[in-house]
Amino acid sequence: MSKTRGRVTLPSESGFLNKTRELMERWGADAIRDSDGTKLDRDVKSLDAEIYTTYFAARGHNEFAVKHMEECQQLYLMSRRFTAVGNHLEMDFMEGYFGQQVVPDCYHDPKKWWEVMDRTTGQAVPASRWELTGASMPEGFGDGREFKGVFDGAGEAAESNESEAITAPMRVVMEHALPFHEYTVSFLVYAVWDPTQMYNHITNNWGDKPHEIPFDVRQEASGLFAREYLAQWLKDNPDTDVVRFTTFFYHFTLVFGSDAKEKFVDWFGYGATVSVKALEEFRAEYGYALRPEDIVDNGYYNSSFRVPTRHYRDYMDFIQRFVAGKARELVELVHKAGRKAMMFLGDSWIGTEPYGAYFPKIGLDAVVGSVGGGATLRLISDIPGVSYTEGRFLPYFFPDTFYEGNDPVPEAVENWICARRALMRKPVDRIGYGGYLSLACRFPGFVDYIEKVAEEFREIYGNIGGSRPFCGLKAAVLNCWGKLRSWQPYMVAHALWYKQTYTYFGILEALSGAGVDVTFMSFDDIRSSGIPEDVDVIINAGDAGTAWSGGDEWLDEQILTAVRRFVWEGGGFVGVGEPSAAERGGRYFQLADVMGVDKEQGFTLSTDKYHTKQADSHFITQDVLRDESGRLDLDFGEGMKNIYALGADTEIGEFSDHEVHLSAHPYGRGRGVYLAGLPYSHENTRLLIRSMYYAASKEKEMKIWFSDNLYCEVHGYPEAGKYAVVNNTSRAQSTVVYDGDGHGVPMELGPCEIRWFDL
Amino acid sequence: MSKTRGRVTLPSESGFLNKTRELMERWGADAIRDSDGTKLDRDVKSLDAEIYTTYFAARGHNEFAVKHMEECQQLYLMSRRFTAVGNHLEMDFMEGYFGQQVVPDCYHDPKKWWEVMDRTTGQAVPASRWELTGASMPEGFGDGREFKGVFDGAGEAAESNESEAITAPMRVVMEHALPFHEYTVSFLVYAVWDPTQMYNHITNNWGDKPHEIPFDVRQEASGLFAREYLAQWLKDNPDTDVVRFTTFFYHFTLVFGSDAKEKFVDWFGYGATVSVKALEEFRAEYGYALRPEDIVDNGYYNSSFRVPTRHYRDYMDFIQRFVAGKARELVELVHKAGRKAMMFLGDSWIGTEPYGAYFPKIGLDAVVGSVGGGATLRLISDIPGVSYTEGRFLPYFFPDTFYEGNDPVPEAVENWICARRALMRKPVDRIGYGGYLSLACRFPGFVDYIEKVAEEFREIYGNIGGSRPFCGLKAAVLNCWGKLRSWQPYMVAHALWYKQTYTYFGILEALSGAGVDVTFMSFDDIRSSGIPEDVDVIINAGDAGTAWSGGDEWLDEQILTAVRRFVWEGGGFVGVGEPSAAERGGRYFQLADVMGVDKEQGFTLSTDKYHTKQADSHFITQDVLRDESGRLDLDFGEGMKNIYALGADTEIGEFSDHEVHLSAHPYGRGRGVYLAGLPYSHENTRLLIRSMYYAASKEKEMKIWFSDNLYCEVHGYPEAGKYAVVNNTSRAQSTVVYDGDGHGVPMELGPCEIRWFDL
Repeated sequence: MSKTRGRVTLPSESGFLNKTRELMERWGADAIRDSDGTKLDRDVKSLDAEIYTTYFAARGHNEFAVKHMEECQQLYLMSRRFTAVGNHLEMDFMEGYFGQQVVPDCYHDPKKWWEVMDRTTGQAVPASRWELTGASMPEGFGDGREFKGVFDGAGEAAESNESEAITAPMRVVMEHALPFHEYTVSFLVYAVWDPTQMYNHITNNWGDKPHEIPFDVRQEASGLFAREYLAQWLKDNPDTDVVRFTTFFYHFTLVFGSDAKEKFVDWFGYGATVSVKALEEFRAEYGYALRPEDIVDNGYYNSSFRVPTRHYRDYMDFIQRFVAGKARELVELVHKAGRKAMMFLGDSWIGTEPYGAYFPKIGLDAVVGSVGGGATLRLISDIPGVSYTEGRFLPYFFPDTFYEGNDPVPEAVENWICARRALMRKPVDRIGYGGYLSLACRFPGFVDYIEKVAEEFREIYGNIGGSRPFCGLKAAVLNCWGKLRSWQPYMVAHALWYKQTYTYFGILEALSGAGVDVTFMSFDDIRSSGIPEDVDVIINAGDAGTAWSGGDEWLDEQILTAVRRFVWEGGGFVGVGEPSAAERGGRYFQLADVMGVDKEQGFTLSTDKYHTKQADSHFITQDVLRDESGRLDLDFGEGMKNIYALGADTEIGEFSDHEVHLSAHPYGRGRGVYLAGLPYSHENTRLLIRSMYYAASKEKEMKIWFSDNLYCEVHGYPEAGKYAVVNNTSRAQSTVVYDGDGHGVPMELGPCEIRWFDL
Repeated sequence: MSKTRGRVTLPSESGFLNKTRELMERWGADAIRDSDGTKLDRDVKSLDAEIYTTYFAARGHNEFAVKHMEECQQLYLMSRRFTAVGNHLEMDFMEGYFGQQVVPDCYHDPKKWWEVMDRTTGQAVPASRWELTGASMPEGFGDGREFKGVFDGAGEAAESNESEAITAPMRVVMEHALPFHEYTVSFLVYAVWDPTQMYNHITNNWGDKPHEIPFDVRQEASGLFAREYLAQWLKDNPDTDVVRFTTFFYHFTLVFGSDAKEKFVDWFGYGATVSVKALEEFRAEYGYALRPEDIVDNGYYNSSFRVPTRHYRDYMDFIQRFVAGKARELVELVHKAGRKAMMFLGDSWIGTEPYGAYFPKIGLDAVVGSVGGGATLRLISDIPGVSYTEGRFLPYFFPDTFYEGNDPVPEAVENWICARRALMRKPVDRIGYGGYLSLACRFPGFVDYIEKVAEEFREIYGNIGGSRPFCGLKAAVLNCWGKLRSWQPYMVAHALWYKQTYTYFGILEALSGAGVDVTFMSFDDIRSSGIPEDVDVIINAGDAGTAWSGGDEWLDEQILTAVRRFVWEGGGFVGVGEPSAAERGGRYFQLADVMGVDKEQGFTLSTDKYHTKQADSHFITQDVLRDESGRLDLDFGEGMKNIYALGADTEIGEFSDHEVHLSAHPYGRGRGVYLAGLPYSHENTRLLIRSMYYAASKEKEMKIWFSDNLYCEVHGYPEAGKYAVVNNTSRAQSTVVYDGDGHGVPMELGPCEIRWFDL
């Protein structure tokens, strides 16, 4: 096969032109980017490549920021809890926070903007019942002076003032606290250090390198500066073809502790979008004021695991509209200058949610994001309304992987094989890498492997491009967030492993490469438009009370009756973990009637439970291996305790340790399926596929573009007139391949092989 | 040692006089009882023994009952759930119930006494929106005729009527049901078969033996009959010394299914106490009417695992007062006849709760109950206000244990060794056995063993009798029920094993034989009288939302502040499982501040959790063995997932699988201790004791009347001037024994040995 070219982005760095040229040729790259901490050579333009340049819209301009600290970004923080032992209580609300990152905002009246909460009763303490002592601001906040930086803790910052007065420590003091109640202070701060730069700065010991101050483009001077600076920058950087916004205006919530370590991270967090101006504009528009508690939310800070309140939804919408409008102004400048605008999906991405209502209005040409596996690939590749998407693959060319004695190839293989499943369903338009090319070059085996990956990517893209693959089923993932958080459920920090989430995230990873049309549906969607007719199966998965399971949404009879009707009339429901969980009326799972199982809370121990016999065989577990004793070899991850079958019509697929972990149940013409958990694996991918086909009563239609061997997958592309058989493992595999008519033929595949056929 | 005599009750049976005499001598028995299905010989009076005779107060008199079926006992039952698919819904509410046990009560106006519930909304359906069709009663209910019995199901019962009319099946019909809502019918039934007799009848295939009909002594004729019959019976049974009531008036809830198998069992259930008369009297007294839902409670039927409602508490109090009053009438008859009155703690014991306010008013001489282990022994031996208590030990002399080829001794040893720990703290006054003596006689090894047991029991009793043993600590077990359910938390059916309870029941079992003064405290107790000054440690244990953990009681600031103050001022708190669990204010465990741990619900995943290091050693785990890899050999039973330490001051005793399972935390001058679970074992008994001493900050006082070897225990009896060292195992043990001054001496003990010393 002759060598192809294009669709690949290389990182480069100064003084590395020849090697860059060589790798460009080997990998077929047609774009060059800078990375965090690297600059491109001035003569990089001599290469036959588009130039991507990283652009920070709201940080990295301290010459501006230090003169406008009152336009610095803000956050609401909740102090630690303070227990009143007597009636007098002093709260050092900054305790545990990092004074170099955040500075309490005493500039705006704390009595108006702060809130003291009695966490024992859940009530706010009237402002008249507490006092702020020792309040002071470092110079630069509204006093017309220049900000000189802060030191450790607000107290020291106060000392550094040239004021002669000896200031008391900053505290919130109560004289009539209720003994043994816990109190917290919700207080506004200025965020004086960009979290990403702070992270890199501290991690890499950048010493006295200036702290980049994030400014808030909602404020007058900052908004103007952001536009004017970009306009000038575009003039100053004529070589840049693509402006890679990293990112726009508000960083996801990332707060450090007083030990200069991460204290709180929420990749979805709106923490940094807050400001007095925003709150005032919100009130003017919505006719009601948000309280600090609406943002602080018990210290949960409206984690995406929380069932969102109406107030928080309003606030998100308000921010999203603002961000989209402001970002559009910058993108228009880029376009006017004849360049393309690309957004990095991360860092200061809050308010740009690519599946949100306002994202298309930004007018971006492209989005690039980090690919950790199949689900994160689909998170990028499914983004609507852009000309192209790009996936940044692993590993980064950083010294933590590229060091002598380590082989970076296995990580690259795993990342590629995992993401490739998803690429086969909906490819990104480009792939790329990040970090130091000089490091990667020292590993010839790695360079060889990526050469193959780039070729294989272009082959896939060339064969299927924009054509829709065959989907045997349409699955709707139901949770509180729906479309807005497409492919993002169960995430905390982007793509990190959490004990509490892997059992559910496996569902998304499995779906990302499956022959299934996947849509994300919210409870609001059901209320407003019902369940779309073309949906075959609804998936509801998560821990009780979370936004993923749905919490009290399941007490809404409109939701319950809609889902019951859907299943009764022939639809499928697949519940994982604690689906539809919300105790009422004698049920913990509100759809226990549909699934035929419920979770024992202790209240029905008095009810005899006779239905404990595992079915000898079942469609769903047909591909599951058994150990010597005949026990099914299943992995439910964290699993779920105390699930029991309601009656004899519950088909028990797996029963052990006095619990059901897998079951199915007829409900009218449809079926409910229950799974205790689904961590990602090839085996569980098959289990989910079988569960969905069974739930949808389409068992007979499963073996279309299908591989008997669960380590392989078959993808049909009727529009492109092709199909592909993929070996998802590094071992050779034998399988029977079923075509679009369900006819099977045996086939052998080499390790990781993709084999293409014309229809 | 010379042979002793007394304090032992033997079962006997007709035609077995000589063998009875022989065993009486060998076991030193001084009382003879009949058993279920056995009658005593007429000449048993020739033996030198008191005669116990079983007496049924509200069943076993069908000659009366069949003529007064409208005085038959009643229950409220909840039908299965019916899903409305359209607007027309027919509910065969008796489906799944056993027509031979219960007959729907259409005699009292169903429109008034029944309730149709929309379980999807939690609302009652107005009576005008449903109709009862096919209503009919078997003859005998208020029609002046004699009851002839029922056959399978109400439909067939209807057919058996001599009425000419062809009756429609009995249904509740709705014409305006809401599609895909679930409905249930709460309906009154007559219970026409005593549950214990029904169980024995069906289990033993008693064929056409008449079904004993339970009558309700609240009703006029039945109340009178119960008294008059007993008066006559006492005249007719002059040989009886002790009337063994088995029991009084209302059986614990035991409902069979249409398959003639147990469907619902609640050893604490008030199901059978209901009647129209009771409900009317309740309304007259309390000024409000109970709804069927107050009794049916979503189908949970107010399981003791439910946080009790005010209505249900009122109802229990109402029933307890009635039962105590009526039982007193019978006991007075017994006393007037010069006999003693003993109550069996079981069967129809509802309303007699021995730790309740009204129990002493009954005036009983004795209580006898079944001993499954230490906690059930203390349940009997701690009963206040009776002259003596008796424990019925295991195994029963029934063919399921006493069959050829089986050795009943090991079960007897286990039962004895387990219960003996508790006897050492507070002995019952007598021990006894049940079943067929003729069976036991065939096992000479068993007869020998019980001879030793009886001797040992008398030795223990003789040494410590009524004297109070030394208690190093006072522990208060805190839950919704407090004293009323002393030693009864986590029970469903008396002493059966449940997966959901053994992890907590182990606490009671451990405490039952520990050198600790144990008290049971309710949330109401704290509200009304605070926490007693002499309490050292509060134990709160159970699954979230149950009456054992406390559910929303933990949202009451009065409770929270009382417990926090108690610990702050030096008290101890030991939480097991999900103590103080009720999500609010950013905490799942409301006492997370005290314990230093909380349970991750998914909402604080964004908060970094650095405190995961297990302490190298800790007072609490000092006696725990380690495996080869140094890992602590701990058994938390079902354990608890997702517990994390809040900060660096949480002392982590055990951390594995990304979770804390054992920890301690300072809080003011006191401490909180957390345990993920505590199934019963010698090792866990020690773990609990250490946890309590540590929580109470009394570590230095632990080694008083203490054994270094956790398989042994030391009990000091300052009042009796004695102490005892007990080997709780069937293996020889070496230990260091600490006396009342904390001086240790080494000692060797034989298998199961007790060694007594004078002070």
